[in-house]
Amino acid sequence: MASELDLKSYLETRRLMVEKALDVALPKEEGLGAQVVEAMRYSLFAGGKRLRPILCLAAAETVGGNLHDAMPAACALEMIHTYSLIHDDLPAMDDDDLRRGIPTNHKVFGEAIAILAGDGLLTEAFTILGNCRGFPADRVVQLIAIIGAAAGHRGMVGGQVVDILWQNRAADIAVVRYMHENKTAALITASTQAGAFAGRGSSEQVERLGQYGRAVGLAFQIVDDILDIQGDTALLGKQTGVDVARGKATYPAAVGLEQSEKDAQGLIAHALEALVGFDQRAEPLRALAKYIVERKQ
Amino acid sequence: MASELDLKSYLETRRLMVEKALDVALPKEEGLGAQVVEAMRYSLFAGGKRLRPILCLAAAETVGGNLHDAMPAACALEMIHTYSLIHDDLPAMDDDDLRRGIPTNHKVFGEAIAILAGDGLLTEAFTILGNCRGFPADRVVQLIAIIGAAAGHRGMVGGQVVDILWQNRAADIAVVRYMHENKTAALITASTQAGAFAGRGSSEQVERLGQYGRAVGLAFQIVDDILDIQGDTALLGKQTGVDVARGKATYPAAVGLEQSEKDAQGLIAHALEALVGFDQRAEPLRALAKYIVERKQ
Repeated sequence: MASELDLKSYLETRRLMVEKALDVALPKEEGLGAQVVEAMRYSLFAGGKRLRPILCLAAAETVGGNLHDAMPAACALEMIHTYSLIHDDLPAMDDDDLRRGIPTNHKVFGEAIAILAGDGLLTEAFTILGNCRGFPADRVVQLIAIIGAAAGHRGMVGGQVVDILWQNRAADIAVVRYMHENKTAALITASTQAGAFAGRGSSEQVERLGQYGRAVGLAFQIVDDILDIQGDTALLGKQTGVDVARGKATYPAAVGLEQSEKDAQGLIAHALEALVGFDQRAEPLRALAKYIVERKQ
Repeated sequence: MASELDLKSYLETRRLMVEKALDVALPKEEGLGAQVVEAMRYSLFAGGKRLRPILCLAAAETVGGNLHDAMPAACALEMIHTYSLIHDDLPAMDDDDLRRGIPTNHKVFGEAIAILAGDGLLTEAFTILGNCRGFPADRVVQLIAIIGAAAGHRGMVGGQVVDILWQNRAADIAVVRYMHENKTAALITASTQAGAFAGRGSSEQVERLGQYGRAVGLAFQIVDDILDIQGDTALLGKQTGVDVARGKATYPAAVGLEQSEKDAQGLIAHALEALVGFDQRAEPLRALAKYIVERKQ
């Protein structure tokens, strides 16, 4: 089992590897096209755990695949995650001035450019996959289907819409689960599925790693909700109590803090169960599952 | 040569065919996901000429391909065009209350949902392509690359950014051409290229139809600029003089009305030249080129 120290250095190594690939995938531009790329890169390189690409790469290795094959999907997933943050932060949505301690995209570039930077990142995510060569085309097409379904109106976008529509309304656990499963867990599920798929895993392996992703994705969002109530502002790098102040539907609001913690633990157990039968190459995913539920930031 | 009456009925038939396919591609939903789909469909079925999908289908037929193979790309192109209109109309962008005589998406659903409806349509465009089966996967991957490049920061999104940044600044013809080539012509070029590609055209045919698309796309935008000055409000279904009032960089502002008209005519001649050597199956594209420069709406 990877020790906590191992995981820390593993995450750091992988983060740098992903950032290098993103830098190559979206290079700076000159001339009239420079500013949109500057705005896109501003948010793409504004920090972040790179959880989705790291999960994607780890899933590829878990099924015996290589990092190179999984990297385009990993970059695409991070671009989609980043675009969703830019759009979420807009005045019309969550109206956030800061993210990870620095000004949000629209505070720096203005709302119009921020909307377009998000649009550009979303488009580029799929374009990267469309430019995959030297990899079976039918797998690329299926990767696009997996990631597209998770990111779209039946996934992340759909969850975000429910998040908006259920503000200041009493949401029961069914609504909160729908929201969390779509807004957060869908793209995390797609991350491990896409990784397993790009790593040329079997259908059963892709399915198992999808179960893992769904469980850790939902646990991740539940922990996020808990941290908004109990977290340390300094460690988190953001204000706590924001969800309640905004009248957001949250997991603890629906079932209470104690049950939320129990459910997060249960989901992690479920995630680990989905990894039974995988060899030591699944150790990073096992450690990541525990990290997600134990994290303080 | 197709007579004007033939073109009218051709366009109408194709428009209905495209709308039927779009209706199948993005069906209504029930439950918590219903509202985002309602917002997406509101703009997707708010009228429009369906120029991009019609050009895509016509290009497929021009190279001897069939409509069925080109329809996923045709639907994807119309979804991308529609998302761009929703985002363009937002208060942070052009702040339009009406489009084609009916309230814009954000006036009906609110800004947050409008942003997300746009995001959903953009995502679904690529997802449709990712779900293409029974068609060579390597062609699907290349279709995604063509459409993604045209829609993204080196295409439509890049042109839109320049449109925003050059408001109320004296733009020379180089800036206006960059803007029009990217904001409008890129996706129209992708429409004919994608159609030719989906229709299994040769590289040379794809290239020629790309030249055609680039020329009619740029002509289309020049005519749009001219109509904003000289057009009939009733025919257009929108106010004229809007570009000037907003300080937009336009083709006539850069080179004058007379030269704009000459350039539009020259581009149409260039488009027709690119079709030399294609047989009677290119007649709709020939008629469309003339229609684009002669249109009053």
